[in-house]
Amino acid sequence: MSYRIEKDTMGEVKVPTDKLWGAQTERSRNNFKIGPTASMPMEIIYGFAYLKKAAAYTNCELGVLSEEKRDLIGKVCNEILEGKHDNQFPLVIWQTGSGTQSNMNVNEVIANRAHQLAGKNIGEGEKTIQPNDDVNKSQSSNDTFPTGMHIAAYKKVVETTIPGVKQLRDTLKKKSEAFNEVVKIGRTHLMDATPLTLGQELSGYVAQLDHGIKALENTLPHLSELALGGTAVGTGLNTPKGYSKKVAAFIAEFTGLPFITAPNKFEALAAHDALVETHGALKQLAVSLNKIANDVRMMASGPRSGIGEIIIPANEPGSSIMPGKVNPTQCEALTMVCAQVIGNDVAVSVGGLQGHYELNVFKPVMAANVLQSAQLIGDACVSFDLNCAVGIEPNYEVITKLLNNSLMLVTALNTKIGYYKAAEIANTAHKNGTTLKEEAINLGYVNAEDYDAWVKPEDMVGSLK
Amino acid sequence: MSYRIEKDTMGEVKVPTDKLWGAQTERSRNNFKIGPTASMPMEIIYGFAYLKKAAAYTNCELGVLSEEKRDLIGKVCNEILEGKHDNQFPLVIWQTGSGTQSNMNVNEVIANRAHQLAGKNIGEGEKTIQPNDDVNKSQSSNDTFPTGMHIAAYKKVVETTIPGVKQLRDTLKKKSEAFNEVVKIGRTHLMDATPLTLGQELSGYVAQLDHGIKALENTLPHLSELALGGTAVGTGLNTPKGYSKKVAAFIAEFTGLPFITAPNKFEALAAHDALVETHGALKQLAVSLNKIANDVRMMASGPRSGIGEIIIPANEPGSSIMPGKVNPTQCEALTMVCAQVIGNDVAVSVGGLQGHYELNVFKPVMAANVLQSAQLIGDACVSFDLNCAVGIEPNYEVITKLLNNSLMLVTALNTKIGYYKAAEIANTAHKNGTTLKEEAINLGYVNAEDYDAWVKPEDMVGSLK
Amino acid sequence: MSYRIEKDTMGEVKVPTDKLWGAQTERSRNNFKIGPTASMPMEIIYGFAYLKKAAAYTNCELGVLSEEKRDLIGKVCNEILEGKHDNQFPLVIWQTGSGTQSNMNVNEVIANRAHQLAGKNIGEGEKTIQPNDDVNKSQSSNDTFPTGMHIAAYKKVVETTIPGVKQLRDTLKKKSEAFNEVVKIGRTHLMDATPLTLGQELSGYVAQLDHGIKALENTLPHLSELALGGTAVGTGLNTPKGYSKKVAAFIAEFTGLPFITAPNKFEALAAHDALVETHGALKQLAVSLNKIANDVRMMASGPRSGIGEIIIPANEPGSSIMPGKVNPTQCEALTMVCAQVIGNDVAVSVGGLQGHYELNVFKPVMAANVLQSAQLIGDACVSFDLNCAVGIEPNYEVITKLLNNSLMLVTALNTKIGYYKAAEIANTAHKNGTTLKEEAINLGYVNAEDYDAWVKPEDMVGSLK
Amino acid sequence: MSYRIEKDTMGEVKVPTDKLWGAQTERSRNNFKIGPTASMPMEIIYGFAYLKKAAAYTNCELGVLSEEKRDLIGKVCNEILEGKHDNQFPLVIWQTGSGTQSNMNVNEVIANRAHQLAGKNIGEGEKTIQPNDDVNKSQSSNDTFPTGMHIAAYKKVVETTIPGVKQLRDTLKKKSEAFNEVVKIGRTHLMDATPLTLGQELSGYVAQLDHGIKALENTLPHLSELALGGTAVGTGLNTPKGYSKKVAAFIAEFTGLPFITAPNKFEALAAHDALVETHGALKQLAVSLNKIANDVRMMASGPRSGIGEIIIPANEPGSSIMPGKVNPTQCEALTMVCAQVIGNDVAVSVGGLQGHYELNVFKPVMAANVLQSAQLIGDACVSFDLNCAVGIEPNYEVITKLLNNSLMLVTALNTKIGYYKAAEIANTAHKNGTTLKEEAINLGYVNAEDYDAWVKPEDMVGSLK
Repeated sequence: MSYRIEKDTMGEVKVPTDKLWGAQTERSRNNFKIGPTASMPMEIIYGFAYLKKAAAYTNCELGVLSEEKRDLIGKVCNEILEGKHDNQFPLVIWQTGSGTQSNMNVNEVIANRAHQLAGKNIGEGEKTIQPNDDVNKSQSSNDTFPTGMHIAAYKKVVETTIPGVKQLRDTLKKKSEAFNEVVKIGRTHLMDATPLTLGQELSGYVAQLDHGIKALENTLPHLSELALGGTAVGTGLNTPKGYSKKVAAFIAEFTGLPFITAPNKFEALAAHDALVETHGALKQLAVSLNKIANDVRMMASGPRSGIGEIIIPANEPGSSIMPGKVNPTQCEALTMVCAQVIGNDVAVSVGGLQGHYELNVFKPVMAANVLQSAQLIGDACVSFDLNCAVGIEPNYEVITKLLNNSLMLVTALNTKIGYYKAAEIANTAHKNGTTLKEEAINLGYVNAEDYDAWVKPEDMVGSLK
Repeated sequence: MSYRIEKDTMGEVKVPTDKLWGAQTERSRNNFKIGPTASMPMEIIYGFAYLKKAAAYTNCELGVLSEEKRDLIGKVCNEILEGKHDNQFPLVIWQTGSGTQSNMNVNEVIANRAHQLAGKNIGEGEKTIQPNDDVNKSQSSNDTFPTGMHIAAYKKVVETTIPGVKQLRDTLKKKSEAFNEVVKIGRTHLMDATPLTLGQELSGYVAQLDHGIKALENTLPHLSELALGGTAVGTGLNTPKGYSKKVAAFIAEFTGLPFITAPNKFEALAAHDALVETHGALKQLAVSLNKIANDVRMMASGPRSGIGEIIIPANEPGSSIMPGKVNPTQCEALTMVCAQVIGNDVAVSVGGLQGHYELNVFKPVMAANVLQSAQLIGDACVSFDLNCAVGIEPNYEVITKLLNNSLMLVTALNTKIGYYKAAEIANTAHKNGTTLKEEAINLGYVNAEDYDAWVKPEDMVGSLK
Repeated sequence: MSYRIEKDTMGEVKVPTDKLWGAQTERSRNNFKIGPTASMPMEIIYGFAYLKKAAAYTNCELGVLSEEKRDLIGKVCNEILEGKHDNQFPLVIWQTGSGTQSNMNVNEVIANRAHQLAGKNIGEGEKTIQPNDDVNKSQSSNDTFPTGMHIAAYKKVVETTIPGVKQLRDTLKKKSEAFNEVVKIGRTHLMDATPLTLGQELSGYVAQLDHGIKALENTLPHLSELALGGTAVGTGLNTPKGYSKKVAAFIAEFTGLPFITAPNKFEALAAHDALVETHGALKQLAVSLNKIANDVRMMASGPRSGIGEIIIPANEPGSSIMPGKVNPTQCEALTMVCAQVIGNDVAVSVGGLQGHYELNVFKPVMAANVLQSAQLIGDACVSFDLNCAVGIEPNYEVITKLLNNSLMLVTALNTKIGYYKAAEIANTAHKNGTTLKEEAINLGYVNAEDYDAWVKPEDMVGSLK
Repeated sequence: MSYRIEKDTMGEVKVPTDKLWGAQTERSRNNFKIGPTASMPMEIIYGFAYLKKAAAYTNCELGVLSEEKRDLIGKVCNEILEGKHDNQFPLVIWQTGSGTQSNMNVNEVIANRAHQLAGKNIGEGEKTIQPNDDVNKSQSSNDTFPTGMHIAAYKKVVETTIPGVKQLRDTLKKKSEAFNEVVKIGRTHLMDATPLTLGQELSGYVAQLDHGIKALENTLPHLSELALGGTAVGTGLNTPKGYSKKVAAFIAEFTGLPFITAPNKFEALAAHDALVETHGALKQLAVSLNKIANDVRMMASGPRSGIGEIIIPANEPGSSIMPGKVNPTQCEALTMVCAQVIGNDVAVSVGGLQGHYELNVFKPVMAANVLQSAQLIGDACVSFDLNCAVGIEPNYEVITKLLNNSLMLVTALNTKIGYYKAAEIANTAHKNGTTLKEEAINLGYVNAEDYDAWVKPEDMVGSLK
């Protein structure tokens, strides 16, 4: 492999000739061989591309950067956002906790690529634009990285997570309406209980997801606050007047999302409670989705020796040894995602609680976990929707059989004969293996006619408006 | 000890004569000897007292309970709320996951105490009011327990947590303003960085707590939704028409808090995402408070060989062996609370994700953790405020010395001579143990006059409006 | 209330006359009003009683304490261990993170009570023994508190946790043997699978608990290491020669447990990885027990519309509204305990990771969580055993019906006709609602005679040695 | 792109011509678009390669597979282990929770590649060997996947984690010995305390890692138990006699690691407590490493306004805005890893506790988290060692200054003049900003000669054997 020499304030470093990055990226590559390469999420790099461009435009407008440099920087940022340089960002999550090295990776790539765009060869002549003095002008890693991670997280939540959850929610809503009058046995403590409809059951899931989406949306205002303009410690040192608001406005314009400058830059650098807050809502969704997926697989269990009240799509052969087996695989993928998200929440908290003084140095790990959780929940909801939820159908035969078996229909008699006599009927039927009606009559508490009039499952499910 | 006989649908049980509870409470006492007795939070019992009274009033108004019974039930509920029967609730958290046994404990105590209020002896004559048919009328454990826990949690959050956090927040705000112009060294990565003021530093904490309070308040609407009226599985079986809304209105009236009936009762029984949501915000506060308390103890460290930039109150002798030692004990109590809350959050999630079908049976453990966290955060903030935060004072001498030492003041030169030359100055001064000014001049990059004009810590902290 | 004056190095404090504690305890009571009073676990106080007595004996033997003082201290420690002074320890977990105040609470109570035993009134005359110079001689909070918590945790684990788990394990083992030949359907992915016996199923639980007990026992050596002798920072300052080993030997003698002096005192003060390690094993048990309890309630679900393969004891009426309902309440209590323990594990980790320099100041919260988890697991296993596991019985009728229904018996044909043809048989029977045998013959893959010879559930469960 | 037709029991699927996989892999690719592709850890694929080869050898030896087929399968497995087919395993973690699809991915690749090795083109003619009937012979996903993940996890722990931790431990041990006599101030509660040596401080870290390694090694026996031979539900259906032990022996031979067949196959399929156990120990190491890295960065903080007692290597420019800044970046990478591992531990627990009946279906997420944590800890320890720990040096000047300042040297006077008088000296010196000696003399408690004789830091650090 051939190399060129790049320099930083510590001296010279050899960099592969075909790479756009510079000395500090190369140092980081060598000093942090932890886990797979290039684990720093590409979404954060894209977040950087938005903010570097916005900073260039702001700096230019405020008279501290030439239009020529602005345009060069903007052009490279656009290329990055088009995915043309994805392989120029080899760094890992497990680097410095401020993400300085990824900030410099972006600065270096932009500077070197700008040199090319200016018609020169990298390493030849003075750099057309300087990574620190031009690309990073009016910035610090300490305000750029959190800005990049907020941009990345906000986009992921609104573009992937919320649409994914909503897609599943809408399907469940449709199913809930379609099965609104399918009366089935209820179960509490996993034990037979009074009836409800399948539509009612599904409506509970819809309510869970509605609440979850609302909780997630509640976190967006905090996430929309950008640290940019705080520079090194939050004071805005070395930024021109008016910079913070303007640069946030440019980012809002470029992304089409309602970003604003953080009212308090000290919080925005030293604490990442916004990520903690957003991930808290992702975790809540994981809790909800685990419940839903669990119910689906239990209700679909069987086909002959389980509950079997609903039928879900058979997408793949389920077993390498048991022929003809089909499994609730989408439920499994979704609940595994939930387990991961619940774990990630702790990682985010542990990172969040250890900020020191003016800077939290768990930025990359916190951001990576938020991005992973947001992606997984969105993707898994879509997968679960397309490959499972849309195909949920009642197994009417089973539903009817299990409903009519239930001893808990006796509850309808509480208001007629009191809890204690009703209990005696149920206990006797259970002991004798008989029906409620038989024992109600035998015990002399209700006659046949009244029994039929009073114990009607379809009258026990409340209003179905 | 003397006993009387109490009965339930399973038969007879011996209960201590002097106790108001009945057969089912006694069964639970015997069957669940897990951890200390009476661990079920008293706040939940009080929540039950509100709702039992509200149910009696609603049942009466809707014509299914006599005024006499309503008044008896109401009277006992008032006694419970006055703390007169605290020792009548011996059950533990670790009982049935629906809290049925605590619901019955309340039903039994109310029924037996009502019998007394009606001038009779417990166990003599027919019960004046029945635990199941009267006290529990139009109710199920499945909707009463979640209602009780929502009442308890909501009250705790608005009466203890939020006021406690706000009290601390207000003190920090005042301190932030008082120290607005105290310029000190900043620290990032725990390393010397550019200056800021102590007031700015504290303003970051204020912003954290403001965000935390807002996040917590965002969860209150979900928590204000009451399950009552859903009865066994959410369908409202055995409730009179109009019951749900009216009973929620009574609870709102009795508690003075904006409770409403849950729009979806199936969610309200089968999932406790509202608790997950509220605890998520408590956890966020824990993350914030840990950061704040950590900073305070680091800045107060010393007295001679630490950072020592601030002075905090000396409240107790700090060591049983080291004479004269004083420690940041309030920081320690607060951060221990934070550790507990972060753990509790996982307990709540693990409970929340395992709901099955129509009922989540992790209600007591989820509620107990929410109540503990809400209490601890509120109490610990007040304790930290009164015994530490109000007494925070700058150690001006140390602050000035550490500020003027800092090599990072060189950052002010970036915009004058560029990042690379500025770095050379700092590195040289570091190597030689000299001052920035000396090396700036030695290296020929800045003259003395310019240096003094350009490198002024007080000009490096941004606007202090 | 009447008060007396107590003093410490900070001055005078008023203490209720009837209390044995002194100035520092009273300061802590006033400065840490966080959560319920007296939350510091009594087990830790008892741990202190053991170590204070051991220290007195060691100090005396090494010539730095008189026999008279030794005997007075020893006598009070014995009284404490007999539970005579339980109400003299009012402090909370949420105090200083070194537990200094609880150490002083013990020192003060011992000193004042010794004064009484010496025939004097508290507060009159010079103290017969001094809390710091005598009771705390050769000690620091920094080595006593971790010693006290190791003693408490070790005792709890070996006296409560392990016996409780073993009791449950032994019952499951007996049941496993009793039901060794009860062939039933297996379930994977909650779906019908090839058969196994109920005994085999239960044997898996036994293996889980065996592994869990072993994992817990693996942590005992670390927990047996005592910090005592390290004093303030681990160097053993102010201890007489030979102190560490001797004092550990006394503690071992007094407790009857194999405690040793920690080989490295710096680790023993600054890190509490031993608690992290022990709690990790408790968490593993929680994971195992959750699985077991979950299976039991699913297999017992019904009585008519669930799985219903096993019958568990009916201990309490299960519902306040549904007459005759019986629920798997022991499973619920146990799984709630598991949720708590899994949460506690995170609290312990968060406390453990934040040790600073020579001292971890999350001692009380870490110890309290370990003790709670150890207690709850032990108690819950016993409760689950006595009230559920011992009564588990197969429901033979259901088991046989579900077994014979299963399409997965087709797996026995794999080795005869290959996976693909076997799958075709199962799929066709599933589609047509017919039996495997019918379709095996219809499709011409197996004749009736071979089918009967090859597909025998009892031959599909392996060796039952 | 060109395609060929592959079949499974559900019908035909189009597969890209240049891929070795078959129908079920392709179905999974299409049905589980969750997160990045090919996220299933390659280490698990390699684990499969070992076990597929071992199964082929065992099947052959037991007479149920021809030598020709055995050799073909073995040859492909070797190719996989040489990394020649890494791009043939496109599936994700978030698939079926049994890992069936990855098992089939391996079966299909082996079958198709064997067809090529037999000189034929994929898709032409009958398959030389069948994925289910030959490659998967005597196996099920349910026993192969857990076997593969145990092989992968065991290898990772012994090849990456333990060597990495040991490397760091050995460096710290050497440093501890080198700095054994460097007396410095101790700090408890972050406050000045009695002295110890830098070597003693580091010895605590060594003890932590020694305990952590031991705890991790304690988990290896459980991890060495292999599920293979249990097939579908643990009964070993469709395996030849003697299979389990023999196949484990082959795996042990091929890997060079002490694998054995699990004594209880029901546990080995239905629960993955072995992973919970191993990850628990990884989490303990994370807790320890976080403490160590935190101490290092605090002690290295400065360079001028922090603690500054040690010097660590300067590896990269630390700031994009602050020239000359150098940060403890290795500490940050390591503590971020710790945060991730602590979160992963919860993910593993949440997966582990939800096993149902005969199969835990959280296998992939549990295995992936164990592998990630094991890798990250191993890598981060090596990185921290090479780039930080090996370069730790005392800053003697600072150490001496801070030591001599300390008021806590007064503790040496406890045994001479008592705790109370010693406290008075320290408090007075603190108040007056004077030295201990001055005040000791002023107060008349000690004369100058005695003071010098009694208060010697180097005598306060215990034995330095």
